[in-house]
Amino acid sequence: MNGWSEPVSPHPFDTAITLDNEAPNRWLGRTSEDYWNMVSPFGGVTAAAMMQAMLHDPERRGSPLSFTLNFIAPIEAGDYAIETELVRANRSSQHWAIRLLQKQRVLAQAIAICALRRETWSHVEAACPAVPTADQCPAAPPRRATGFLQRYEFRLVRGKPFAENPDSLSQAWVSDVPPRPLDYASLTALCDSFLPRIFLRRPEFVPIGTVSINIYFHASEEVLTRHGAAPVLTVAQAQAFSDGHFDHHGHVWSRDGELLATTQQLVWYKE
Amino acid sequence: MNGWSEPVSPHPFDTAITLDNEAPNRWLGRTSEDYWNMVSPFGGVTAAAMMQAMLHDPERRGSPLSFTLNFIAPIEAGDYAIETELVRANRSSQHWAIRLLQKQRVLAQAIAICALRRETWSHVEAACPAVPTADQCPAAPPRRATGFLQRYEFRLVRGKPFAENPDSLSQAWVSDVPPRPLDYASLTALCDSFLPRIFLRRPEFVPIGTVSINIYFHASEEVLTRHGAAPVLTVAQAQAFSDGHFDHHGHVWSRDGELLATTQQLVWYKE
Repeated sequence: MNGWSEPVSPHPFDTAITLDNEAPNRWLGRTSEDYWNMVSPFGGVTAAAMMQAMLHDPERRGSPLSFTLNFIAPIEAGDYAIETELVRANRSSQHWAIRLLQKQRVLAQAIAICALRRETWSHVEAACPAVPTADQCPAAPPRRATGFLQRYEFRLVRGKPFAENPDSLSQAWVSDVPPRPLDYASLTALCDSFLPRIFLRRPEFVPIGTVSINIYFHASEEVLTRHGAAPVLTVAQAQAFSDGHFDHHGHVWSRDGELLATTQQLVWYKE
Repeated sequence: MNGWSEPVSPHPFDTAITLDNEAPNRWLGRTSEDYWNMVSPFGGVTAAAMMQAMLHDPERRGSPLSFTLNFIAPIEAGDYAIETELVRANRSSQHWAIRLLQKQRVLAQAIAICALRRETWSHVEAACPAVPTADQCPAAPPRRATGFLQRYEFRLVRGKPFAENPDSLSQAWVSDVPPRPLDYASLTALCDSFLPRIFLRRPEFVPIGTVSINIYFHASEEVLTRHGAAPVLTVAQAQAFSDGHFDHHGHVWSRDGELLATTQQLVWYKE
């Protein structure tokens, strides 16, 4: 032991959501090949970068409570800007509007609430399903050799993709690759890691794209820190597929069965 | 029959969401005593007015698909302005940002998507519960002599307010008073007509306030027109009560069991 340690290279997720503060309320980022999806970045990493911009904003107080992001158009590889606007703040909560732009074109818009958490009567009514531990579930083979799917490990409990399951209910343990301690940015990204529900109902591939994602955060920073880098249990089910869009309702649970977030999303699909 | 008909006075809901187009993308409205809640207008009518501003905007194409509204601060009795911004449009969808202001202060902000609906493979996975028809359920006695509760008729199927129910799952037939044909504005308001979940879990009254509401519209204009003025079946259940906020997940069904909307909301509560 000589007191020296190996230089630790940053986690690819942290690199992907790195932002430079160009001006007050304006941040510059760059898309990451590590989190690339078919034609644009993985939506979860875009959501995380927008969340991160708000978290970094020196005006931010409290922790994320609600975050809604509408995806407008594909983001191209390269630089982007994120603009954060503190629309209004009061003693215990803040309301934000956040936009992501490339070449002055808005490609995603979000609204969010941060709040000071306080002790109250509490009760979790949603039930964490009784499932095998992550260790007991084999890791799903990667579906492609490249892209953001390499940055997550999926251990499927229920719901087989590209098959006709009895319903679209899926349960999966998901973790960053390599493992990374959970925080609000990575939890935001994990809320977009759900398999598109249509792939659980139809055997063939159809083009899809998330158009809106809504997240309610139920965990304090302490809960996330305590969770650490363990896999989270993600559970989701579609509500309806109609007129070219479907929605799902999902839960993200800690390894110890704490409800970290509830989330919904609306997804465009072809045919 | 002399060809004359009685002058029909407008429905109080239509009066409550009447807007004057002051300038491009700017609308003036006025709060309505008919839809007043304890310290500010019923959130559903505020949401409906913001929806209506978008629907009236001459740039609007397609029908509402997703609508998310964050309530920032109480709206005072009197005039307000709504600003609509078409952030971006492409061939088949539009992205909007909508803000409600009084005296230049933003009191509510929304983001929304409109889209052209198109025929695709469809499947409703959520199940409409088997419940008695609205006619078979007695109307709940009004809880107060005044206010917006007089503008809705609630026929409770499951879930007794201010009692300790086994869970917070509620089912209720709800209709406008007097009856009014369903449209996107009234469906938006109905998505905020759910009894606050905490009143289904605790016998005592506690102050509450909706902070965020998210709606995915599953019904085309034709479906709403076909539904007419019949009651809708509203179903909701809390996910978690913690740190001063709870959320619920809900469905709105037509009389014939068609899924009209899925909705979530996040509600502040005291203690």
